[in-house]
Amino acid sequence: MTTTSQETSVAEVMADVGTRARAAARQIANASTEQKQDALRASAKQLDSNRAAILAANAKDMEAGKSSGLSKAMLDRLKLDDKRIDGIRDSLLAIAELADPVGQIISEWDRPNGLKIERVRCPLGVIGVIFESRPNVTADAGALCLMAGNAVILRGGSDSFHSSGAIHGCMVDGLKDAGLSADIVQLVPTTDRAAVGELLAGLGGNVDVIVPRGGKGLVGRVQNEARVPVFAHLEGICHVYVDGAAELKMATEIVLNAKMRRTGICGAAETLLIDRAVVDSHLKPIADALTAEGCELRGDEQVCKVVGEAKHATEEDWSAEYLDSILSVKIVDGVDEAIAHVQKYSSSHTEAIVTNDAEVAERFLNEIDSAILLHNASTQFADGGEFGMGAEIGIATGKMHARGPIGVEQLTSFKYRVRGSGQTRPK
Amino acid sequence: MTTTSQETSVAEVMADVGTRARAAARQIANASTEQKQDALRASAKQLDSNRAAILAANAKDMEAGKSSGLSKAMLDRLKLDDKRIDGIRDSLLAIAELADPVGQIISEWDRPNGLKIERVRCPLGVIGVIFESRPNVTADAGALCLMAGNAVILRGGSDSFHSSGAIHGCMVDGLKDAGLSADIVQLVPTTDRAAVGELLAGLGGNVDVIVPRGGKGLVGRVQNEARVPVFAHLEGICHVYVDGAAELKMATEIVLNAKMRRTGICGAAETLLIDRAVVDSHLKPIADALTAEGCELRGDEQVCKVVGEAKHATEEDWSAEYLDSILSVKIVDGVDEAIAHVQKYSSSHTEAIVTNDAEVAERFLNEIDSAILLHNASTQFADGGEFGMGAEIGIATGKMHARGPIGVEQLTSFKYRVRGSGQTRPK
Repeated sequence: MTTTSQETSVAEVMADVGTRARAAARQIANASTEQKQDALRASAKQLDSNRAAILAANAKDMEAGKSSGLSKAMLDRLKLDDKRIDGIRDSLLAIAELADPVGQIISEWDRPNGLKIERVRCPLGVIGVIFESRPNVTADAGALCLMAGNAVILRGGSDSFHSSGAIHGCMVDGLKDAGLSADIVQLVPTTDRAAVGELLAGLGGNVDVIVPRGGKGLVGRVQNEARVPVFAHLEGICHVYVDGAAELKMATEIVLNAKMRRTGICGAAETLLIDRAVVDSHLKPIADALTAEGCELRGDEQVCKVVGEAKHATEEDWSAEYLDSILSVKIVDGVDEAIAHVQKYSSSHTEAIVTNDAEVAERFLNEIDSAILLHNASTQFADGGEFGMGAEIGIATGKMHARGPIGVEQLTSFKYRVRGSGQTRPK
Repeated sequence: MTTTSQETSVAEVMADVGTRARAAARQIANASTEQKQDALRASAKQLDSNRAAILAANAKDMEAGKSSGLSKAMLDRLKLDDKRIDGIRDSLLAIAELADPVGQIISEWDRPNGLKIERVRCPLGVIGVIFESRPNVTADAGALCLMAGNAVILRGGSDSFHSSGAIHGCMVDGLKDAGLSADIVQLVPTTDRAAVGELLAGLGGNVDVIVPRGGKGLVGRVQNEARVPVFAHLEGICHVYVDGAAELKMATEIVLNAKMRRTGICGAAETLLIDRAVVDSHLKPIADALTAEGCELRGDEQVCKVVGEAKHATEEDWSAEYLDSILSVKIVDGVDEAIAHVQKYSSSHTEAIVTNDAEVAERFLNEIDSAILLHNASTQFADGGEFGMGAEIGIATGKMHARGPIGVEQLTSFKYRVRGSGQTRPK
């Protein structure tokens, strides 16, 4: 392979970023809670007093975005104003209040030979965060990784390059104010896409985990190319199953909320399963409530017979993540068929059952292996804040390490501390 | 790429193994503790009553091993006799007595809106185990994965093909006796090396984690080629640091045990660090005790001045895993230099400090990010049995999910169960 001097240069820049991150990780891993809080509060202060510079940087990005033809939705995500800067500042202050996971003892026990074993939380090391246009991720992700004792390498979208840079500058100043290394929170200093490739390759062992924040395209690329572990979900194909023992009022409210509260988030329901036992009583009222709010329904043959407005669902609909006001609807023969359908089509994110039958609910909660299973509650509770974790960097559907909301605790690893009094192991 | 019909056939065989494992994983994930215990006890019974067949199969492997020129050590690992079959049987019975991790609630909390959240252990899914010549791994690894509710795909070394097959046959009969699917514990039915490649590629999403059991060559290949997570350690470059506040007698006993109890295990010490403050009093007696047991010492310049028998250590010695009666020895300036040396050269497996200074011990235990840190105890305690986990499938040095001894609990994942009473998420 021939490498151009440009590529060599990106590789060199990124190798240096990695080396500095690893060194900084050692410092932040051993920083006290107070030092980490100081850094976050100082960063919040810097944000407050550098509003003009941040807004000016954002104006540059907005102008470039307009002339390069970014969509209205993209421009809205990119835009900063005083209220949004308040939000970023408040988020930094809130993360500083989270319980410090580092040093928490997860479990401890004594051995008959007198050894005292502790399983204790410690930082993961260096976390790479790759995100798209929202500049607030710079502060949110950086702060959450820092609070968990990690160094972080942030790679923002090129659209938000100047905005992210201005916010990152405030964090660097906050770190310095707290007497910590600026390398604890680094922003990749180039928009060259080759930098993402370097990050995904792990920077020679200097990246411990990658967290992608963005759409399916980004997450898919990261999952395919990363040579280090990835905390992410590719998509959220979430199901609500209305069981034969479901109250109509509760079922209607939950389905409506799960689908329509926000249609663009990963915890939004994409498929409704209804028990054949309550088709006559429940299907039409629930469908009417959805269509009244502008939801398009795509049903199986029987659904279409009952609901005049429903379109015919194709096989693709059962594995579609619409992220829009569309819901696929299928009639199933009780909880067995509901579980089988979910296991076949789900993306292992979040599923809900509505039922007053506790036994049926237990089967649904136990037999499906998605990250989050809810009984009589909306799938839109799939969120770190709603779980009481305070803040999250995303939601993971993998089975390893982090699963469901990824909060500050999930950004740590653990190690064993063993205390003895001279024990040696018998032959 | 051109594929020969042979390769296509291995790919097909392995794809089928994967599909059957995934289906079987669903069954075992929901099996009761009693059913899993029944399967393990029935397997133990089958082993007992099929000794003749197992010994005959092993004789075939031994004969082939002798004519292919296997080393004496390899032949010893391969060999089965009545006592070793007793050991395999007893190990199955012991694993059946372990606390079932599946369904254990790790933590639970209530939210102000009434939602009850539980974090509960669930199986990982399908585990691939790749091992070398010891045929007992067939039963040990198979049983441990099964007890954690997983399906397992075992790939043994070609040297132990017949022995593993005979042991596997007993487990299959045990599963059937308990009314469970034979596909829960599968043995790859071919010695073709292409099968390992297929397994490492993940069998189309049907393998959740790979556990290699064997030497550095095997583990290195698995870590480099696997497209799924790997639980493993590449090597155990374990350190003992004798601090200035260490008692001589305790230090001598711990160093001797850490190095010489068994030199070939991953928890054996490979480097001794001695605080300059106690070189005069501690170095010679410790060195004498080691050389009296036949240990070769490789020291830095100052060590060689004090210890006449010591050879000069080269830079390579500080990162060597001898797995033999050899120890590298270095004088350091207190705990700071000891920590720096360990962070630079350690393989993040296990390190021990000997000291009566509690503050110094805390620094060593907290600042080093290896999986296991011991104070006043031998590194050879790095073992699932010694940790009270009952049995282990190996030791992991990665930072994700499983770390240190990998017991039945580490072979599970978790999910969230959330119970509500009709909660919907506010706009």
